[in-house]
Amino acid sequence: MAQSFEQLLAAVNGRIAELPAFRRQPDRLYAPAVYTMDLGGKRIRPVMALMASQLFGGAVQATLGPAVGLEVFHNFTLLHDDVMDRAAMRRGKPTVHAKWDTNTAILTGDAMFAVALQLMSGAPAGSLRAVLQAFGDLAVGVCEGQQYDMNFETQPQVSMDEYMEMIRLKTAVLIAGALQIGALAAGAPAGSVSRLQAYGTQIGLAFQLQDDLLDLYADEAKFGKKIGSDIRENKKTYLYIKALELLPAAEAAALEKAFATPTRPETEAGKVAFVKNLYEQADVKRHCEAEIQAMFQAGEAHLDAIPQTEIDPEAMTVLKQFTARLLGRDY
Amino acid sequence: MAQSFEQLLAAVNGRIAELPAFRRQPDRLYAPAVYTMDLGGKRIRPVMALMASQLFGGAVQATLGPAVGLEVFHNFTLLHDDVMDRAAMRRGKPTVHAKWDTNTAILTGDAMFAVALQLMSGAPAGSLRAVLQAFGDLAVGVCEGQQYDMNFETQPQVSMDEYMEMIRLKTAVLIAGALQIGALAAGAPAGSVSRLQAYGTQIGLAFQLQDDLLDLYADEAKFGKKIGSDIRENKKTYLYIKALELLPAAEAAALEKAFATPTRPETEAGKVAFVKNLYEQADVKRHCEAEIQAMFQAGEAHLDAIPQTEIDPEAMTVLKQFTARLLGRDY
Repeated sequence: MAQSFEQLLAAVNGRIAELPAFRRQPDRLYAPAVYTMDLGGKRIRPVMALMASQLFGGAVQATLGPAVGLEVFHNFTLLHDDVMDRAAMRRGKPTVHAKWDTNTAILTGDAMFAVALQLMSGAPAGSLRAVLQAFGDLAVGVCEGQQYDMNFETQPQVSMDEYMEMIRLKTAVLIAGALQIGALAAGAPAGSVSRLQAYGTQIGLAFQLQDDLLDLYADEAKFGKKIGSDIRENKKTYLYIKALELLPAAEAAALEKAFATPTRPETEAGKVAFVKNLYEQADVKRHCEAEIQAMFQAGEAHLDAIPQTEIDPEAMTVLKQFTARLLGRDY
Repeated sequence: MAQSFEQLLAAVNGRIAELPAFRRQPDRLYAPAVYTMDLGGKRIRPVMALMASQLFGGAVQATLGPAVGLEVFHNFTLLHDDVMDRAAMRRGKPTVHAKWDTNTAILTGDAMFAVALQLMSGAPAGSLRAVLQAFGDLAVGVCEGQQYDMNFETQPQVSMDEYMEMIRLKTAVLIAGALQIGALAAGAPAGSVSRLQAYGTQIGLAFQLQDDLLDLYADEAKFGKKIGSDIRENKKTYLYIKALELLPAAEAAALEKAFATPTRPETEAGKVAFVKNLYEQADVKRHCEAEIQAMFQAGEAHLDAIPQTEIDPEAMTVLKQFTARLLGRDY
């Protein structure tokens, strides 16, 4: 009997709440880890790992350690990314380096990576090496993605291919890796693990494009943060790159010029409106939505190629509904 | 036939030179990792892992991946420690954050931790879980040690017990863990793994006390860095804490006052001479040497408790000579 999203989420949050790894001394090292884990977040990665596991008949308890390890790892990357990006707020609260200091964010992040590794080492014996190799590979990939993202800040031109490769590494590798690790822990056949991973890559890319869209087109009250931050920070997202591809030369040059200029508080509202207008001339919202839809369908095709005999159909429905709901957020 | 220190070091350096994990893109992520690994260092940790492995008949090739993983992990901690300590130089060259920038040191460090994990995942099947648990535990311990070390900067009083616990975590855990991982990879019996680990803890503590001594009493030309940096940086080392224990109240107060004052370039020579004079009044050099000797003997007692039937006596000689040589450096 497949567990629902709500049941799996409760299992994940239950395990996070009782993690002994963070109930240790020195307090200065672990308090910021507890603070970060308590900020919430949607627990997408561990839930997806558990969904992948139960797809192949895996028991939730057997995969819960590695699943929570993925969430701890994800939160570690947020701590370090927030230092590197000088972000003051995360999920409506001060970031760790803002609330404590940079050294704390670095060292607590390192300790969280180590705890993630401890949790990952609890994978079932038959899949332990494969799970750890998957974890090592996804950790390397996430670092590479973050480096490309930082490179793009000073790189004058970013092609769509470069952008897609960056978000594949920075975002999709961890979604795909979560599904892969869940399936491996359940002893899934190699071919099906690969298909599930390919599905995760498409879904992860779609999540990121949707984030790019929501940053500008979300309902600010529901979104929980200020609209247009990517434009204010001159971030080269899908919308920007696609607009440069599609706009006439004069408008493209104007867009590039706007992004070459640091945003000042007194001009930011005008800049967001100006860029949004250019994006609408290029109709990039529609292109982005079509791209998300294409990725979603490509992902489902990988999923549907998994032999029916290997899977629990009820668990498949749970996974598909979860993803569809995540990609169906209002904007 | 046990391999000599020189043979094991050559195996370690050979594997480091050909690591495919660092021959990847983006260059900005991996070039600082190659730079760091190429700075050299004594490769103490991987060599000790291999020595522990061959003690129990383990093949060098089977332990080389995890052994090199320990060196990559150690170098990752140096990158982050140098950021946290704002250190400009390491092994006579600019540190990564000085040569590139802080973000690079953070992210390249993270990637090195991930690569260390990949290497550790290459442990032999029978010992894989134990090796990974040991690695996770030592990684957590090293972070805790670094946190205590940073706490001590602003903590007015540091007791000798607190200091010993800090250096156990920051330094000895990794030495003990290297021996433990080498022995585990060779399939050593649990009791002997524990004895070897206890030996490593004593030796690791002794290494750190020797570093504390060398910082002030080394031959500057051989030492490769400026004498007295711990005093200039007001670092509460064994020498400082022991001197406070032993000095009469007036002298102890003078020492505390000297360490409560930031060092200025024009006063640093006088400060080092003043503190060194107080240390000599308390005879802390002799106390420290006696402590190192006691730790060395306690360590050897653990080693000698390993049943002779389990070990290769030639490999035991290689290990003992290596440690004795490291602890017999001139000062």
